[in-house]
Amino acid sequence: MKKTFKIFKKDEKSKARVGLLQTPHGPLLTPFFMPVATQGIVKTLDLEDLKTIGAEIILSNTYHLYLRPGDNLIKEKGGLHKFMGWNGPILTDSGGFQVYSLSSLRKISEEGVKFQSHIDGSYHLFTPEKVIDIQKKLGSDIVMPLDECPAAGVSHSYAEKSLELTLNWATRSKKVFGEKESLLFGIIQGATYEDLRIKAAKSLIEMDFDGYSLGGFSVGEPKTTMLKLTDVLTDIIPQNKPRYLMGMGTPEDIIEAIARGVDMFDCVIPTRNARNGTLFTSSGRINIRAARYSNDDSPIDKECSCPVCKTYSRAYLRHLMKANEITVMRFNTIHNLYYYIHLIKKIRESIINNRFIEFRNEFYNKRNLKTPEL
Amino acid sequence: MKKTFKIFKKDEKSKARVGLLQTPHGPLLTPFFMPVATQGIVKTLDLEDLKTIGAEIILSNTYHLYLRPGDNLIKEKGGLHKFMGWNGPILTDSGGFQVYSLSSLRKISEEGVKFQSHIDGSYHLFTPEKVIDIQKKLGSDIVMPLDECPAAGVSHSYAEKSLELTLNWATRSKKVFGEKESLLFGIIQGATYEDLRIKAAKSLIEMDFDGYSLGGFSVGEPKTTMLKLTDVLTDIIPQNKPRYLMGMGTPEDIIEAIARGVDMFDCVIPTRNARNGTLFTSSGRINIRAARYSNDDSPIDKECSCPVCKTYSRAYLRHLMKANEITVMRFNTIHNLYYYIHLIKKIRESIINNRFIEFRNEFYNKRNLKTPEL
Repeated sequence: MKKTFKIFKKDEKSKARVGLLQTPHGPLLTPFFMPVATQGIVKTLDLEDLKTIGAEIILSNTYHLYLRPGDNLIKEKGGLHKFMGWNGPILTDSGGFQVYSLSSLRKISEEGVKFQSHIDGSYHLFTPEKVIDIQKKLGSDIVMPLDECPAAGVSHSYAEKSLELTLNWATRSKKVFGEKESLLFGIIQGATYEDLRIKAAKSLIEMDFDGYSLGGFSVGEPKTTMLKLTDVLTDIIPQNKPRYLMGMGTPEDIIEAIARGVDMFDCVIPTRNARNGTLFTSSGRINIRAARYSNDDSPIDKECSCPVCKTYSRAYLRHLMKANEITVMRFNTIHNLYYYIHLIKKIRESIINNRFIEFRNEFYNKRNLKTPEL
Repeated sequence: MKKTFKIFKKDEKSKARVGLLQTPHGPLLTPFFMPVATQGIVKTLDLEDLKTIGAEIILSNTYHLYLRPGDNLIKEKGGLHKFMGWNGPILTDSGGFQVYSLSSLRKISEEGVKFQSHIDGSYHLFTPEKVIDIQKKLGSDIVMPLDECPAAGVSHSYAEKSLELTLNWATRSKKVFGEKESLLFGIIQGATYEDLRIKAAKSLIEMDFDGYSLGGFSVGEPKTTMLKLTDVLTDIIPQNKPRYLMGMGTPEDIIEAIARGVDMFDCVIPTRNARNGTLFTSSGRINIRAARYSNDDSPIDKECSCPVCKTYSRAYLRHLMKANEITVMRFNTIHNLYYYIHLIKKIRESIINNRFIEFRNEFYNKRNLKTPEL
């Protein structure tokens, strides 16, 4: 089973498409959403819950697992799939974003990035080669190369220099990755500069990766910039390669990115919001802590078929939130991830049935929002 | 279906017995253990988990539910069973113990006890009548009357005065409770003084309650005192009434109390310990945080059939504990409650098969402990 990606349905009125991505742990329909299992578990959930929500693939974090419990221990335990008991595909990130956002005393050089652990302050060096090696030990299905992810608002000259480094690291990553059953993606950086993004895409396409990630888009740039650049890049990336918009986003972001030809998503929004009581429904967001739900017998979302909506009232969930009961974080997480994954499933179905644009209009209408321009 | 209790098997070598207790939400085999659902949920678990662990009855706290979300709201929602979605029997405590242990500015008088909420500092008055009324609104199957629970080490004269109040409150509680399908227990207090305990038991037996609680035994008195007094009291309480040792205890406490004729138990030990990583196994306790488990492929307990032991390794659970992942608190809770409830089931079986004493010996042998004197 060699890494392949096939598009079998293209929308006629947008760039949305449905495809099939082969991985060592089975095929995946695109577009798909990856729940985030940062430390080898989707926060608050268990393996049964992953089935319940319809998870098809999960994302785990190289940086976290490398530091704790360690890539060597996980390798010894038979890899991440076996260690955590998940038999579906796993994508791991490069750890780059976490080094920049979580660790302290970072020093970036041509060799790689030196950093201090956010857990115990110990010193570490991530090189492109090291990061591939860690992900091999974890047994990832889809591997990301080390990149530099510049902050929002960097200058063109900084972004250009940073991109050069990221492209050099991509070359070294590809070299050491070799020919594997697992997939290696190229990460397109370049901050908010269209010329740099195009340059990045073209250079990486030349190297022929198994897919292309659009990186650095969850660091604070305006949504319109993100969508504009996404639109430009999906015109450049070959049709027969999957496109992954890293770390995004809201349901609206996902619909708009799919309309612009993106195939893969991950985001902590559904899980993190769940723990704070913010829930996604077919008519928009609610926060279950609000006093108005204290006497509300209805489920979170009448249109939702998740087990939480089938079993528990808003009044009960609100009580559990106010009483700081841990269980409700799991209930909320189940609901939000079920919402995200089933939203994507409905989008796929709409593309296959030639009604993606109608689906998109209905989505905004239910929220009393104007459908954005494509 | 009137409240009844029938013993159908008595152990020949101890005071252990197996009985059937009728409640408005179905019959219960005794002895039984009640997981604690303080705020209308067993911490970290959901309704499916309660089935998984084999829960037969749960205990909920009048004090907590009265303060939040309020007994009136719960009544409006159809009672606690409907509000939380649990269809089995529920025992509620009187709130007395929580008033003394959690709230501030308590003032005890003949009328009742004034206290300040631990949540928002608001002022409240619990009278015996009020506490029965709250439990009626909750829809409890087994109701406890308001009592005073003196601290460990009080003087005989203080304990005697306190007991007088508790007995007066019991009389008032019985009067206002009336003839219900639900059950009202009498709570035997008297601190560590045998004469007061006997006096309490005799007075309450005269009033003819549906069962008798042994109260005030989890406030720090020596275990030997607790067992000695339990032994004395179960000789006084009529055979055809269930005996409930409130708030106890370790697996050893439970076995010893059953040997001395106790039928009902509740305790936060299995759930609270679970959240700290302390797990019960057939060969004793372990703490899953310990470094020695970091590379351990075995389940928590090889002899356990709970879904956690069937699915996850100690190494993975230890990783989740160290990484502060919430899910592991649920895994640990499932395991510990499964352990407790199945321990009781095995004890019942041993009584029925005339081998309780052998079972008790085996229990201590597996832990390399000497079986205590009966």
